[in-house]
Amino acid sequence: MKILVTSKKSYPAPGISSSGPIASAISVTLERPDRIVFSGIQPTGELHLGNYLGAISNWVKLQNEARSNEQVLFSIVGWHALTLPQNPKDLSRSRADMLATLLAFGIDPKRSVVFYQEDNQCHTELSWILSCITPVGQLRRMTTWKSRLATKRNANSESEVDESILNAGLFTYPILQAADILAYRATHVPVGEDQTQHLELARNLADSFNRTFDPKKSFFPLPSQLITPHRRVLSLKDPSSKMSKSSPDVSSRISLTDTTSEIERKIRGAVTDSIQGITYDPVNRPGTSNLLSILAGSVDEDVEQVARRYEGKGHGDLKKDVVEALDGLLKTPRTEFERLRQDKGYLSAVAKEGAEKAKQRTSYTLQEVRRLVGLC
Amino acid sequence: MKILVTSKKSYPAPGISSSGPIASAISVTLERPDRIVFSGIQPTGELHLGNYLGAISNWVKLQNEARSNEQVLFSIVGWHALTLPQNPKDLSRSRADMLATLLAFGIDPKRSVVFYQEDNQCHTELSWILSCITPVGQLRRMTTWKSRLATKRNANSESEVDESILNAGLFTYPILQAADILAYRATHVPVGEDQTQHLELARNLADSFNRTFDPKKSFFPLPSQLITPHRRVLSLKDPSSKMSKSSPDVSSRISLTDTTSEIERKIRGAVTDSIQGITYDPVNRPGTSNLLSILAGSVDEDVEQVARRYEGKGHGDLKKDVVEALDGLLKTPRTEFERLRQDKGYLSAVAKEGAEKAKQRTSYTLQEVRRLVGLC
Repeated sequence: MKILVTSKKSYPAPGISSSGPIASAISVTLERPDRIVFSGIQPTGELHLGNYLGAISNWVKLQNEARSNEQVLFSIVGWHALTLPQNPKDLSRSRADMLATLLAFGIDPKRSVVFYQEDNQCHTELSWILSCITPVGQLRRMTTWKSRLATKRNANSESEVDESILNAGLFTYPILQAADILAYRATHVPVGEDQTQHLELARNLADSFNRTFDPKKSFFPLPSQLITPHRRVLSLKDPSSKMSKSSPDVSSRISLTDTTSEIERKIRGAVTDSIQGITYDPVNRPGTSNLLSILAGSVDEDVEQVARRYEGKGHGDLKKDVVEALDGLLKTPRTEFERLRQDKGYLSAVAKEGAEKAKQRTSYTLQEVRRLVGLC
Repeated sequence: MKILVTSKKSYPAPGISSSGPIASAISVTLERPDRIVFSGIQPTGELHLGNYLGAISNWVKLQNEARSNEQVLFSIVGWHALTLPQNPKDLSRSRADMLATLLAFGIDPKRSVVFYQEDNQCHTELSWILSCITPVGQLRRMTTWKSRLATKRNANSESEVDESILNAGLFTYPILQAADILAYRATHVPVGEDQTQHLELARNLADSFNRTFDPKKSFFPLPSQLITPHRRVLSLKDPSSKMSKSSPDVSSRISLTDTTSEIERKIRGAVTDSIQGITYDPVNRPGTSNLLSILAGSVDEDVEQVARRYEGKGHGDLKKDVVEALDGLLKTPRTEFERLRQDKGYLSAVAKEGAEKAKQRTSYTLQEVRRLVGLC
């Protein structure tokens, strides 16, 4: 996987004070890694191929390629999910399913810190403190809350959205997202380009905090965005839109738990075009190109390279190979997922261990932040 | 002290689940009282007589008059202080001084739970969850952030204030204030009339949470405002304005640590009027009436009643008695304050015990809130 680092800033390892029992306990148990990767995912609804190719597959690679002086943290961010109305029972099930999914697809609790955000209150504490240095005007310029409200209202454009249904959580959630990252003093954040604006806020807040409270040592590193391979998976039925869990037509998406025959049925019914031969041309041939993208993602190859292999072939050949690749990709994880979701004791144990590691890693941050702002 | 309860709502004691180790630990240690009183004070700057007569003296009475089935909690709310820029060193000193002051004036850690807000992360966790059900429009209609910005900018009216320097913390702090109250499921909140709007938000959020997540049992009681005696202490030099820590003229206020001779000098120099005799007439005789108010507050009597005793006397007599009353009021507490502020070990121990009690009391609330919203 090619990962682009948009900016990389070296920063001094923080001087861990040797005074006091807490500080020395930390200096024994924690060595600050050179690189700290943090990412979060919302536990909402059924997972589909778009989620896997867009986020989870990248996480697994980041974990597997991590060197010894690197730390990788993945969080299931339930507090963010509350910014739009949720059914509590569904949310509760979805968060456990998300954990099972991450584990089934290769996130290894021995190599990554995987945890529920809401098990670590340091996130909301830091979020409050950061909110006191976040201009309201900057939040107002964020585009995400507008687009999320537009989606929720089924509006055609963001200009149709008024603020009357905007809640403070949705309005301020980029601050919580910044706190998620900065609580671990993460240096790298693998997120899609739609999150660039949010990461910029996190960088601004880190910089603003440093300038206000710690001008000499700059406590927070400015996190860099890891631009991960852009694998936008489109609807199988309407390749002008993204594959989405909210589409009423289940045939438009591959669920991560789909059986072989379900995959077969859905890919066979996927919308393509009547042009002879296979070429990768997302603008003029979105359906065909989407199948090529899915295939390339599933076998982790470059899509142009994959496309060249089908130059003389037809849609039937392509679809057959997509089914085979997807089935190969999903077969083991889906069995593992079904096994794990039944094993509630194991999931709880993983979550508990992840929460403890997460809390351990943020306790020093918050201790220092409290000292710097004058709250101790 | 006459305390007006604006509304009182009975509510069922919460059914504490007997399952699970945490729940049973709580059911052993905590019996839910019938009445829970919560109030907070910001740890900013030097305390003066206005703070004492306006808040702390009421707290002491609420504590001393509390019955056995009543719980009284007082919090030094440092997170709120961050909503306006603070000097970290001053803030750190002020919060310890505030704790010493409360103890010196009679808050008893054996009878009240007294603690630093920032020692209990449940406040910020609940604040986030409540923010997800708080309409931004409702925050926009709050008048306090406008007046606080106006004060900060030395503006003459709120209409002069623009939003450009508004931070998200100041904008959303009524939500944190609601969380402060609701985390303890407080039933009564002694606050001044300037806080009525905020308490109304706390009631709205409690009601909105109940309707959304717990329509049958209504988890949160709707907290009632305890209207405490309105003792507005005015500047000794300009009785058209409140006694304030921010006035550049220290003679305009009585500090809680003023010595006998300082009190004498300041009261002798207090602005009165040239009218013969003493009458209580705040509109036409603000300076004289302010001294009567201070005297009445110091000896805990009705101001009209006090005024009648001075009908045939002059300003000299009144000032002499004010000095005597104030010195009587402040003598023991100021010695105690100086002793306590040196005893950092004791203050830390009190804060630690308070924090533990506070956390114990909110852990059940948050456990239930998480369950109700689907985050467990």
